[in-house]
Amino acid sequence: MRSPAAPLGVFDSGLGGLTVVRALRDRLPHESIVYLGDNARVPYGTRSPETVIRYALGCARELESRGVKGLVVACNTVSSVALEVLRAELDLPVSGVILPGARAATSAAGDAPIGVLGTLGTISSGAYTRAVASFSSRSEVLGQAAPLLVALAEEGWTEGEVPRLVVRRYLSAFFGPEEIPGLPRASKVGCVVLGCTHFPLFRGLIERELYDLGGRGIPVVDSAVQTALDVEAFLDERGLGTPSRERGTLEVFVTDMPKSFESVASRFLGEAVPTVEQLDLRAG
Amino acid sequence: MRSPAAPLGVFDSGLGGLTVVRALRDRLPHESIVYLGDNARVPYGTRSPETVIRYALGCARELESRGVKGLVVACNTVSSVALEVLRAELDLPVSGVILPGARAATSAAGDAPIGVLGTLGTISSGAYTRAVASFSSRSEVLGQAAPLLVALAEEGWTEGEVPRLVVRRYLSAFFGPEEIPGLPRASKVGCVVLGCTHFPLFRGLIERELYDLGGRGIPVVDSAVQTALDVEAFLDERGLGTPSRERGTLEVFVTDMPKSFESVASRFLGEAVPTVEQLDLRAG
Repeated sequence: MRSPAAPLGVFDSGLGGLTVVRALRDRLPHESIVYLGDNARVPYGTRSPETVIRYALGCARELESRGVKGLVVACNTVSSVALEVLRAELDLPVSGVILPGARAATSAAGDAPIGVLGTLGTISSGAYTRAVASFSSRSEVLGQAAPLLVALAEEGWTEGEVPRLVVRRYLSAFFGPEEIPGLPRASKVGCVVLGCTHFPLFRGLIERELYDLGGRGIPVVDSAVQTALDVEAFLDERGLGTPSRERGTLEVFVTDMPKSFESVASRFLGEAVPTVEQLDLRAG
Repeated sequence: MRSPAAPLGVFDSGLGGLTVVRALRDRLPHESIVYLGDNARVPYGTRSPETVIRYALGCARELESRGVKGLVVACNTVSSVALEVLRAELDLPVSGVILPGARAATSAAGDAPIGVLGTLGTISSGAYTRAVASFSSRSEVLGQAAPLLVALAEEGWTEGEVPRLVVRRYLSAFFGPEEIPGLPRASKVGCVVLGCTHFPLFRGLIERELYDLGGRGIPVVDSAVQTALDVEAFLDERGLGTPSRERGTLEVFVTDMPKSFESVASRFLGEAVPTVEQLDLRAG
C-alpha cells in the first residue's frame, strides 16, 4: 500500500477528466494529483472494449509507475468496460465515474426513471443501466447520446442559441410530446445524470432547459462531484488521506500536443493549468 | 508499376474519406476501390505531425500490400503533412486532397482571397496557404476552423436551425461587419473551399448561407470533386485507367467497430455501403 502523502492518479482519454480533477480539488484541496490525458488516442468512446482496455492499462501502469496511492478513472468509457481488469491487474484502489453518479441518481430520481446524457459509446454500452441496477431493482434508465456537446465544449461554445438548441434537442428525449403548444411537457425522468466528463460545462444550461421544457426543476446529478465524494470515502476508509495542510499540487501529462491541450484545459479545470508535459505510452 | 486492372487505394482516418470515394465513383465509375478507414485512431487532426506520418505509413502499406495501382489520401491532415514521406516510401502514384482544391480555388477566387473551412488541425497547419502559394504568388488564404461541422455530420444533423447557425457563425469570418442591419455584408473572399472531407454534406447549406450573408453567390470548391479530377489525370498520364466497362467494385476496411461504421457510412458515400471488414494495423 502507498503512503498517504502520495498523490492521486487521475486519467482520461483527453481533456474531459479535468472536470473530475476540478471536483476533486474542490472537495479534497490538500490532495496532490497527477493527471494523464491520453489525447494521442482520444476519443476512447468510439473504440471497441478490447482496445479501450488495452489503452486503459497503459495509462494506469504509467500512473502506478509514478507512485500514486489510488487511481481515479475520470472517463466514462473506461469506467464502463475496464474497471474490473484495472482492479485485477493493479495493486491500487480504483474509482470510476459511473457508479458514484448512478448511486446518487438512484436516490435523486425516487421512483421515476433516470435520464442519462452521455457519449454514444457510454449510452450504447448500457453501463448506466447496469450500474443503476446494482443499487435498485426498480429504477429504469433512459439514455440519450449527446455527442455534439463534446464538440461544443472543446470549442468553448457553451453559451448562446446553438448550445441551447442542442441541449434542448437532447433533453427532449426525456419528455413526453407537447400536448398544448407553449405549455410544459410531462417529464419521463426524475433526474438527469451528466454521464460524460465534458458535460459539467453545460450544467447551468441543462438545468434551465429542463425547467423550461417541463415547467419545474429536475435535479441534475454531476458525476464528477459524486466521484469526488467517493474518492474521499475510499481515502478515509483506508487511512490514505494526505497529512498535508497545504494546497495539493497538480501535475498534468498528455500523450500528444501539450500546447494545444494547455490552451483549452483551464475551461475544464476552472483554474490556471500548470505546465503540461508530454509522455509516450508506446507499450499500449 | 501495377496493372491498370488493379484497384485504387483510398484511405482516411475514418468516415470522411467516403465523400472522396463518392466523387471518384461519380467521375470514374469503372474503377474499383479499396477503402481503409483507420477509425481505431480517428481523429488524426488533433495529433502531432510525427504521429500522423506514422499512422499514414501504416495505412498506405496496408493498401500497397493489397495490390492497389495508386493511392488517394482522402484526409486533409495526412495530405498536409505526410504526402512527401508517402511518395518517398512507396512505389505508387499518390494524390492528396489539398492541392486539387487549392488549384481550383486559385482560379475560382480571381484576385480575391480564398476562404477555407477545415478542422482546427488543417487550418492551423497552414497547409492551404502553402498549397495556394504554389499556384499563385498573389492569392491570399483566410482559414476558418469549423470542428462542429464534423460532429454534426457524424450525427447526421445536416439540416435545420442548428447546422444553419453553426455554418453561419463560421462563414461570418469571411465577411466584413454588418454596416446596416439586414443588408448584405462585404465579402472578404472570392470563393470558399470545403477543406475537410466531412463538409460536402453541408454544401447546399453553405452555398445558401454564403448567399444570404453577402447577397450574392460565392463559389464553393469541393475538394473531393477536384481530387477525383486529379486522379483521373494521373491515371490517364500513366496509362493506368481500368480497361473494365463494368461498374467498379468497392471494398471497405476499418480498424475498429465495423458495424457502427456501416450504420453511418452511406450518408457520406451516397450509396449503400458494402459489408465493412475489420483489420488490424498494429505495425503502426
